[in-house]
Amino acid sequence: MSVLAPPLEELLDGQVVGVMATESGDGRPRQSVVYYAREGDRLLVSSVAGRAKVRDVERNGWASLCVMSPRPPFPSATFSGAAGVLTEQIGPATAAVAQHVMGAAEPPEAQSEEALAAAGRVIVAISIERVSAATHLDQLRSG
Amino acid sequence: MSVLAPPLEELLDGQVVGVMATESGDGRPRQSVVYYAREGDRLLVSSVAGRAKVRDVERNGWASLCVMSPRPPFPSATFSGAAGVLTEQIGPATAAVAQHVMGAAEPPEAQSEEALAAAGRVIVAISIERVSAATHLDQLRSG
Repeated sequence: MSVLAPPLEELLDGQVVGVMATESGDGRPRQSVVYYAREGDRLLVSSVAGRAKVRDVERNGWASLCVMSPRPPFPSATFSGAAGVLTEQIGPATAAVAQHVMGAAEPPEAQSEEALAAAGRVIVAISIERVSAATHLDQLRSG
Repeated sequence: MSVLAPPLEELLDGQVVGVMATESGDGRPRQSVVYYAREGDRLLVSSVAGRAKVRDVERNGWASLCVMSPRPPFPSATFSGAAGVLTEQIGPATAAVAQHVMGAAEPPEAQSEEALAAAGRVIVAISIERVSAATHLDQLRSG
């Protein structure tokens, strides 16, 4: 069962990009825009091995994603929790992110593990443990 | 003279909200959506005394703001630097944020210092020292 209230699921499922934050190693936050998909209470972010944010997650195992609807009053929320970097058997998760980004009814054919590994693809998986800064979610349908 | 390249100024001036990140005190990033205005190389964020992000800035003097254009491919960049909380003589800055948010040609009449203080209004000012995660800025005009 999902811990997420329906408006939070609606927010996450209605957008394809969010701002991911990690701790950069000097105590300061690092932020960048990422494509994601929701899988139950997990957020899947497709990235590349060696990127700064991926190294941050490998080091400290935590990340957050702030997602916003782009119309005033900008309904939004920040989802945070334990995070890990997946490097094996990531074909289905990578296809799920692509499907969400494209708004497709079905996921694209999963790439082979060999092709994903050769391209250095990884999945950062965030287990949503905390929702904060949730605002204007009642405006999602009318926004 | 601004340190910001024209596409970065265009990105900042074309949006009214961004995702602000601070360090929450336990080493983890805190993120929330905020309204802002640009004043040269400074970002002005209107907030309220006592909010968690305001306390973070008071404690460690650093913040970042990730700004994104809402159309694919989502041109974006993260602006970070020393930050401080202004509590006095913030009428013009508060009006500047309101002007930017409303897209008005002129700022609204500044509220009195007394009214702003009574409402607990503050301005978080971020001096842009670093720009990171800048992507697809060449798509801003066509986006």
